Amino acid sequence: MATNQAPPAACKITVPTSPSAVIHTATVSAPTNIACIKYWGKASSQYNAPINDSLSLTLDQSDLRAVTTASASSSFTQDKLWLNGKEVDLKSNASTWKRFRACVDGVRACAGPKLDPHNNNTILVDNEEWKSMHVHIASYNTFPTAAGLASSAAGYAALVASLVQLFHATESYPGQFSTIARQGSGSACRSLYGGFVAWRSGGKLADWSDSRAEQIVDEHYWKDIRALILVVSDKQKDTSSTAGMENSVATSQLLKYRASTVVPSRMEQIEQAIHDKDFETFAKLTMMDSNQFHATCMDTYPPIFYMNDVSKSIVSMIHAYNEWAGEIRAAYTFDAGPNAVLYTLEVYEVELLALVLRYYPEVGDGYVNNDEKRLEAAAFELDGGLVEAVEKRCRVRDGGDVKMVYCTKGGPGPQTLEDGCSLFEFVSE
Amino acid sequence: MATNQAPPAACKITVPTSPSAVIHTATVSAPTNIACIKYWGKASSQYNAPINDSLSLTLDQSDLRAVTTASASSSFTQDKLWLNGKEVDLKSNASTWKRFRACVDGVRACAGPKLDPHNNNTILVDNEEWKSMHVHIASYNTFPTAAGLASSAAGYAALVASLVQLFHATESYPGQFSTIARQGSGSACRSLYGGFVAWRSGGKLADWSDSRAEQIVDEHYWKDIRALILVVSDKQKDTSSTAGMENSVATSQLLKYRASTVVPSRMEQIEQAIHDKDFETFAKLTMMDSNQFHATCMDTYPPIFYMNDVSKSIVSMIHAYNEWAGEIRAAYTFDAGPNAVLYTLEVYEVELLALVLRYYPEVGDGYVNNDEKRLEAAAFELDGGLVEAVEKRCRVRDGGDVKMVYCTKGGPGPQTLEDGCSLFEFVSE
Repeated sequence: MATNQAPPAACKITVPTSPSAVIHTATVSAPTNIACIKYWGKASSQYNAPINDSLSLTLDQSDLRAVTTASASSSFTQDKLWLNGKEVDLKSNASTWKRFRACVDGVRACAGPKLDPHNNNTILVDNEEWKSMHVHIASYNTFPTAAGLASSAAGYAALVASLVQLFHATESYPGQFSTIARQGSGSACRSLYGGFVAWRSGGKLADWSDSRAEQIVDEHYWKDIRALILVVSDKQKDTSSTAGMENSVATSQLLKYRASTVVPSRMEQIEQAIHDKDFETFAKLTMMDSNQFHATCMDTYPPIFYMNDVSKSIVSMIHAYNEWAGEIRAAYTFDAGPNAVLYTLEVYEVELLALVLRYYPEVGDGYVNNDEKRLEAAAFELDGGLVEAVEKRCRVRDGGDVKMVYCTKGGPGPQTLEDGCSLFEFVSE
Repeated sequence: MATNQAPPAACKITVPTSPSAVIHTATVSAPTNIACIKYWGKASSQYNAPINDSLSLTLDQSDLRAVTTASASSSFTQDKLWLNGKEVDLKSNASTWKRFRACVDGVRACAGPKLDPHNNNTILVDNEEWKSMHVHIASYNTFPTAAGLASSAAGYAALVASLVQLFHATESYPGQFSTIARQGSGSACRSLYGGFVAWRSGGKLADWSDSRAEQIVDEHYWKDIRALILVVSDKQKDTSSTAGMENSVATSQLLKYRASTVVPSRMEQIEQAIHDKDFETFAKLTMMDSNQFHATCMDTYPPIFYMNDVSKSIVSMIHAYNEWAGEIRAAYTFDAGPNAVLYTLEVYEVELLALVLRYYPEVGDGYVNNDEKRLEAAAFELDGGLVEAVEKRCRVRDGGDVKMVYCTKGGPGPQTLEDGCSLFEFVSE
């Protein structure tokens, strides 16, 4: 698996340590996920709990992943964090510090003893000792920075999963780790599981410990789901999703109605569609829910616009495609930015990619992450009627309107990596 | 008043008639109107009645107006219609025919006798005689075709108002004529009155005769309201509003909630704001309602996008302007297309126009309809802090992104024009 690759040199951290120090480490990779039923709006900003349930597909980690090494040692004098090779001043930002603490302290509260398998499982570190240690964390992600793909879900999932490994932590109820990841970044809770994952909003318990993720089906259940990610160029300045959803909750009457009335029935329907592998229903609900999320952004005061004219042209192309086919072969969904994620079935993946390449011309090498698929799509002859149907609504866009296309699919939750993948190099002083 | 100008030569219609024919004519001009609380969705397509109340400002007719001459004669052998100088085949389109018939037959049912003031008010034409005559109607509008400004409101208001004059019609209840104009084009009912006008959705009566317009205040009440219309260039293909709203009613759950729950309280609030001349409240509700209308379009399946990236940049500019001012000095509203209408107060009109000219550069002569205002705005020095505040969010757009700017204001309802303004020239054969 691609996740066992060595990290980019720039992300390796060299840390001088005392020769006698014992340093415990664990390295994991974690996936991102793309929501079909969207999370937008917090019911509790203190607990980072949402106003409605949401549901996503966890994506394969071959291309997009966060890799995190967590280490602990009694020789460390403070907690430290490096992102993509650069140290982050943890306390300079109150929100970062709160999130980091929630994850480290939350997992450590579930810690178990580290045993020595070579010595009759004697205890090397007990629960109390973990609490006396500081941690050093290093993380990098393979999301191109310019792409604007949400990397916080993968990042906080990797943080929590690496800490779980490090501290030999165990859950006292199913989904407990997801309640911790949620406090790092809401959608991170869904990245702790593979396949299709629901995030139950919770709210019956005062500490929101019922606001947790739950796997609907694993990544092997509906194997022929495919995703194309179209990275869209954006000249507009973004509204951060935290600020955006706060404003939406405060000002959008439509959002309240969506959360209380529309989403509960959509969750039931889409879970059933996934169980039935009913792409038509799954796809339609995914498109409608993306549209409704962006509608509530527009109903916010001042309004928030994440989709731009290129995003909208992708919507038009997909509807033209489906109408021509007389069935739903592809669905679009957009998060808090202009990028499109297109869901389709394996059987239509090359046709869809060929359509994308026709209307969003390739610019330069590496436009498609998967060279084999790119060649297949380039050789694919689009039906004349399809081209005609799309041309009624869409024009060929300028090169660069879409910067890159990822061909990907569903995948598993976090993966433990071998010691050789550690992001730290501890060097005796 | 500018409306007494002679029509463009191309709109004059020459009709050969028998030398002995008596031909009755009436010519009126009618305004367009711009909604602050939007109409979107029909409760009855048969009666063209809406799912919610709406409210608009009727605009001055100096620049944008429809002019219609209605004529009737026992010598006419069929009903005929000319739009902008070209005859329309009335029966070739079932919808056009239905609308036309509803207006002609609706007003004729209210007809009164035509009296001869020079001869002791003897009856020249009685009610029964009107029914035996066919009509010839000619209409033109001063809306630039390319602009995409809704002209149907002014057009059907002018049709009904000209027929009222022609047939000496009287209402048997207040607003009856507006129920007829509504059947031509929904928003036309609001153009029968000047100033701020509400359209009550009605629905208590089986024939929807309670779905009618009502003047809130006339055009003299809040004299310092100003409107700038920014005609935005559009490369996307439009969804007609009739088809669009039908789809929204069928598929958008948010639209149902908006109509039943959000709009009633907004109507109360905006009517109060108008009575109080409270621009802050009026403007905020106008912006929120425009955004919510477009949100329900986006919540439609397939989604409808009327605003484009240029429209959105105008929204950003207005919010930056208001935030800099520390008060609401301008509001935007968008109908079923990318054009913006900006409401402001007389005292800020030149400042706002100067801001528009800075971020949407002038292209060619006639970019602003009012040369005096254009010169004032060109000489106006924008505050440095304002420029800085706007530049944080907006860039100067390409010339041509906005094609034209109209400076206008509130105005009266339909105006009767002199005989010299008739669009017909009846020539003895």
